[in-house]
Amino acid sequence: MAKESSSKLVPGTPLLKDELDIVIPTIRNLDFLEMWRPFFQPYHLIIVQDGDPSRTIKVPEGFDYELYNRNDINRILGPKAACISFKDSACRCFGYMVSKKKYIYTIDDDCFVAKDPSGKEINALEQHIKNLLTPSTPHFFNTLYDPYRDGADFVRGYPFSLREGAPTAVSHGLWLNIPDYDAPTQLVKPLERNQRYVDAVLTIPKGTLFPMCGMNLAFDRELIGPAMYFGLMGDGQPIGRYDDMWAGWCTKVICDHLRLGVKTGLPYIWHSKASNPFVNLKKEYNGIFWQEEVIPFFQSAVLSKDCTTIQKCYIELSKQVREKLGKIDPYFNKLADAMVTWIEAWDELNPPKEAAGVPNGTVKGK
Amino acid sequence: MAKESSSKLVPGTPLLKDELDIVIPTIRNLDFLEMWRPFFQPYHLIIVQDGDPSRTIKVPEGFDYELYNRNDINRILGPKAACISFKDSACRCFGYMVSKKKYIYTIDDDCFVAKDPSGKEINALEQHIKNLLTPSTPHFFNTLYDPYRDGADFVRGYPFSLREGAPTAVSHGLWLNIPDYDAPTQLVKPLERNQRYVDAVLTIPKGTLFPMCGMNLAFDRELIGPAMYFGLMGDGQPIGRYDDMWAGWCTKVICDHLRLGVKTGLPYIWHSKASNPFVNLKKEYNGIFWQEEVIPFFQSAVLSKDCTTIQKCYIELSKQVREKLGKIDPYFNKLADAMVTWIEAWDELNPPKEAAGVPNGTVKGK
Repeated sequence: MAKESSSKLVPGTPLLKDELDIVIPTIRNLDFLEMWRPFFQPYHLIIVQDGDPSRTIKVPEGFDYELYNRNDINRILGPKAACISFKDSACRCFGYMVSKKKYIYTIDDDCFVAKDPSGKEINALEQHIKNLLTPSTPHFFNTLYDPYRDGADFVRGYPFSLREGAPTAVSHGLWLNIPDYDAPTQLVKPLERNQRYVDAVLTIPKGTLFPMCGMNLAFDRELIGPAMYFGLMGDGQPIGRYDDMWAGWCTKVICDHLRLGVKTGLPYIWHSKASNPFVNLKKEYNGIFWQEEVIPFFQSAVLSKDCTTIQKCYIELSKQVREKLGKIDPYFNKLADAMVTWIEAWDELNPPKEAAGVPNGTVKGK
Repeated sequence: MAKESSSKLVPGTPLLKDELDIVIPTIRNLDFLEMWRPFFQPYHLIIVQDGDPSRTIKVPEGFDYELYNRNDINRILGPKAACISFKDSACRCFGYMVSKKKYIYTIDDDCFVAKDPSGKEINALEQHIKNLLTPSTPHFFNTLYDPYRDGADFVRGYPFSLREGAPTAVSHGLWLNIPDYDAPTQLVKPLERNQRYVDAVLTIPKGTLFPMCGMNLAFDRELIGPAMYFGLMGDGQPIGRYDDMWAGWCTKVICDHLRLGVKTGLPYIWHSKASNPFVNLKKEYNGIFWQEEVIPFFQSAVLSKDCTTIQKCYIELSKQVREKLGKIDPYFNKLADAMVTWIEAWDELNPPKEAAGVPNGTVKGK
């Protein structure tokens, strides 16, 4: 069954084009969309402008897109707009909220098309879709990596009862060229480039956290969307560059609780440009310090059994953040509030399906 | 520090030759040692003959080896020899016990030298040594895989306090060509070959079990040796082909408890020959059935805080096996007894260092 969904994928063919939105946090690089045109043009783009609303973003002809700047976010969310970061690419999560599609792919504008070892351009989106449409294996490790891939399977000793796998919520793609290092590592290894193409997709096991990078990330919005909040970063906040990390920690804890899968590995994109390590250090230093307590917090976080939806999990997590991380810095109380606001805003823009389709409370067909 | 130990490794140079034994469970294939000669000749071999002691194993000229058959095992261990399997490659663990070296590499005689994508012959032992000499990262996942490898590092969001890693106890290598499938998968996919060279070594995270294959496996005998018991398989036992799996489950639970690391991935060997799936099915069917309960048992096994050595952990685990798995089948009571016997035999052949080096109980230098 799992294998069948994978066999539907014909290389080079646009896929799920009515079911996936591409969310981009601003586009400063004019080449970006031109380079991705063969792969992205069939899809709808949601561009969330992170800075000055009066600046104009030029989108080349032929793309189907909607663009939101800060004024739009304020108009649509009202006071709840406070949960969306300003002057930081964390604002991208507003795009997840306004999308109406099942899947989201988000990518940074300094990420270009990578080539595989044979020199062929990699259709990153196609690989993400494969990853999302095939199950994950979070409950036991398969030493031949993704067992649903052609030419692979579950190895000897893999319990048969676990071979159906778990639904995949997240597909975390990697980057060739500039690696995603923190400022201290950037400073120490300014010339290091990632040149190793590892031909694997694997599931991050249950109970294991990972540093989720937002550069090249796809997810199933229906399965996990409300947990993909990128936090309060940038303008007016004591921290930056932890937006995707925050989302990754929360998402992984919730996926583990709800028995959903998170994959990492293929596809690669070409990360063209290292950001300034000095600027990064300024954004990161609180995070570098705080993560030493925040990660153990998430590693030991347990959600109660009545947390049966992403929203319930997320609200429960926000309470634990306030209770256990508030003592590190008042920032975490503000963040806990913002987590609640985010869920309220999400539910306002994405009313539960029963309520949405049914006027006056009449339940059709019952 | 970790990186330095890796830089000592010069490709092609024999390494740790006085610190590593190669353990081979019988050699039926005469080409086997010839093919491995350039890589294995510098090392000492321990061959443990699995079947009829009257059969002679021919070892080509130039190899330094010791050979044990069933008569030797009985003579050396006396009644405790009952814990060593007969007519099954599980007998290899006797070799771990009689070795006096720090490291063990074990390999099957149908495993040949593989080639990397550039066509170069892979020095499997060298890669295992690299894996064992550099730390593992069981407590947080690094998305660029092994951070201690040249050209890689810890990615953004990896806690700095965890970057020292954990000592590596086990290096689990993979196989090109014939994949290590169970009998049902062999029957269903007789022609499947593993042709994907995944250029990665990764740590299996804490809390996650994996199917450990004994075909191409290295470990630090001082760190984890007494847990590498390959159980009761083959002649007179209701199960086969679960020897390495058993060792893998026990080892991983103990490594997690003692904060040791287990790596999987590179190096590949070339697995030349599929074993007979019908014979395999007969050996495996109990295991296929039992593993559905045994794996959850190991997944939830907790060792008490006073289990501070491998031996203590293993004895504690044997008690839990008796208590919780004995009800599946009387075989598990027998296995629990054998686990205890194994530790007794291990300690007899490997007396604790303080006791061994210090005559009459006098503690030197204190």
